[in-house]
Amino acid sequence: MTPATSSLLVRAARREEVERTPVWFMRQAGRSLPEYRALREGVPMLESCRTPELVTEITLQPVRRHGVDAAIFFSDIVVPLMAVGLDLDIVAGVGPVVAEPVRARADLDRLPELTAEQVPDIAESVRRVVAELGQTPLIGFAGAPFTLASYLVEGGPSKNHERTKALMHGDPELWHALCERLAQISLTFLRVQADHGASAVQLFDSWAGHLSRADYERYVAPHSRHVLAGMAQSHPDVPRIHFGVGTGELLVPMAEAGADVIGVDYRVSLADAVSRTGGRYAVQGNLDPALLFAPWPALERRVREIVEEGRRAPGHIFNLGHGVLPTTDPEVLTRVVELVHDASAR
Amino acid sequence: MTPATSSLLVRAARREEVERTPVWFMRQAGRSLPEYRALREGVPMLESCRTPELVTEITLQPVRRHGVDAAIFFSDIVVPLMAVGLDLDIVAGVGPVVAEPVRARADLDRLPELTAEQVPDIAESVRRVVAELGQTPLIGFAGAPFTLASYLVEGGPSKNHERTKALMHGDPELWHALCERLAQISLTFLRVQADHGASAVQLFDSWAGHLSRADYERYVAPHSRHVLAGMAQSHPDVPRIHFGVGTGELLVPMAEAGADVIGVDYRVSLADAVSRTGGRYAVQGNLDPALLFAPWPALERRVREIVEEGRRAPGHIFNLGHGVLPTTDPEVLTRVVELVHDASAR
Repeated sequence: MTPATSSLLVRAARREEVERTPVWFMRQAGRSLPEYRALREGVPMLESCRTPELVTEITLQPVRRHGVDAAIFFSDIVVPLMAVGLDLDIVAGVGPVVAEPVRARADLDRLPELTAEQVPDIAESVRRVVAELGQTPLIGFAGAPFTLASYLVEGGPSKNHERTKALMHGDPELWHALCERLAQISLTFLRVQADHGASAVQLFDSWAGHLSRADYERYVAPHSRHVLAGMAQSHPDVPRIHFGVGTGELLVPMAEAGADVIGVDYRVSLADAVSRTGGRYAVQGNLDPALLFAPWPALERRVREIVEEGRRAPGHIFNLGHGVLPTTDPEVLTRVVELVHDASAR
Repeated sequence: MTPATSSLLVRAARREEVERTPVWFMRQAGRSLPEYRALREGVPMLESCRTPELVTEITLQPVRRHGVDAAIFFSDIVVPLMAVGLDLDIVAGVGPVVAEPVRARADLDRLPELTAEQVPDIAESVRRVVAELGQTPLIGFAGAPFTLASYLVEGGPSKNHERTKALMHGDPELWHALCERLAQISLTFLRVQADHGASAVQLFDSWAGHLSRADYERYVAPHSRHVLAGMAQSHPDVPRIHFGVGTGELLVPMAEAGADVIGVDYRVSLADAVSRTGGRYAVQGNLDPALLFAPWPALERRVREIVEEGRRAPGHIFNLGHGVLPTTDPEVLTRVVELVHDASAR
């Protein structure tokens, strides 16, 4: 057992006793940090995700600056899609844009399975990061099948996912074939990271909150379950965090898809999340990232409330209910880390 | 009692027996209709909202075309703010943009109370629409204080509402003063519509789903309650519909703020909405607008499911779980109206 696997984060995820609450922030490695913006200057997003020097440095920046209890692997959910040869790009101010959207069965031919050999740079980045991190655990990163499918079907980010839902309901066979392929890709991407030293993984289903529970259960959960169950089988010691935004209605099926930790967005209290999931899962969350813009006394009050609520959960990893906003003052983040450490010390 | 006040919509809202389920669509008067696009050609949004000929024609278009059971007054939530003299505009592709955002107490001076005399055009538009509608009821329209406040504080549409939440938590006194003023404005705007013939009203809190329940209850509900209670007092025969997107967590406080009908978005089943609110409220919803893009058999199945679920509610008004998307095929909407009428006949 390496030091990182006995870390606070891993123990909290396993619902073991911890001496204080671990804390990290979604998008902690990113635009809120001036050192990140400096490093990314002139480097396109996808290039930065495939360059081990950059991935390593960007992943480590928030750990050094904030003293968070985990690093999150710097990547983008479309990186493994690019690795299998799909023609896509990340357009600044827009997001991932897919040259030819997936609309018919023939389009699946452009989406072969992912093999570890296609992402040697990811393996190298993970090894470098883990070597630098020492006792701090690295959380592996992948997008969940539904969110990936939405980008592929819509051709880019979508507010309403109308083509995706039309496909899901109108051609369930093609939908499931697409998601099976994406589940294989996500699983392989996570396995590469765990093979090379990630101590935990987080499956991001950013858009899942745009689904009804019935649709989630029928069209999405089986594929996310494939990813999470596959990780449980190959890497039983690597806890699995499952997160989506606006997923209060989906906490039960998302937890039951095979998570150790259920990500909770700020709309649902940790107490409600624990009770809805029967007290059987650790929880991660759930400070509203907008509150990082409030005066300190209001923010402090809310952080303390969340720490207290978290004490009554089977396990609690402090995080935001969503990613750090780019305009966030990084000094506030550091102060929140200190406060969580201080307020949660047993 | 005019014919419209004994309409299906009003009776369903009052939880009375109806011979079939009434149906209308949020944003039925809008860009999905070619006749709307033709009429709006070259006319700025806010100008069209203040021109009785246009408001009348646009409000009536979907009633004529689809045979829906209610008209929704064509307006924009910022119209009453413009009427009190606030400098704002609706920018195509962006939304409402406020020249000088509200950030300090002095800014409230730019937001006087609304009087009926400031919106004679609204009164005239309502009278014209009601005269043309005959037995079909008109639903009055206003934005709720929180959503209006978000536009004013952010200066325009916002994804994360960080300035709004920072103000709410950081200066609750100013926040409440702002929302009290906005509640007065919304209430007056609805009263003008009810005074001149609207048979029901809908309070739109488009962004409320971005709040936790605790924040909603503390910072928002008192002000929406002021609007809804004010309507109950002045117009007890005019049912009140209360709607927001992504508000599964807020259904109880939104209902208890003084609604007769709680709007349900597609993420929550009507059955869950009824059970969460104790079976004491009629429900409105909740077809996912993205499903209007699915092949007819899939759409038909879902419409029939919703009609069946609605039969077990104390009252049901069929609607979408969100507004009609601009790219929706209007013929599909007409077909859904026919299907709801057919499937729900008692």
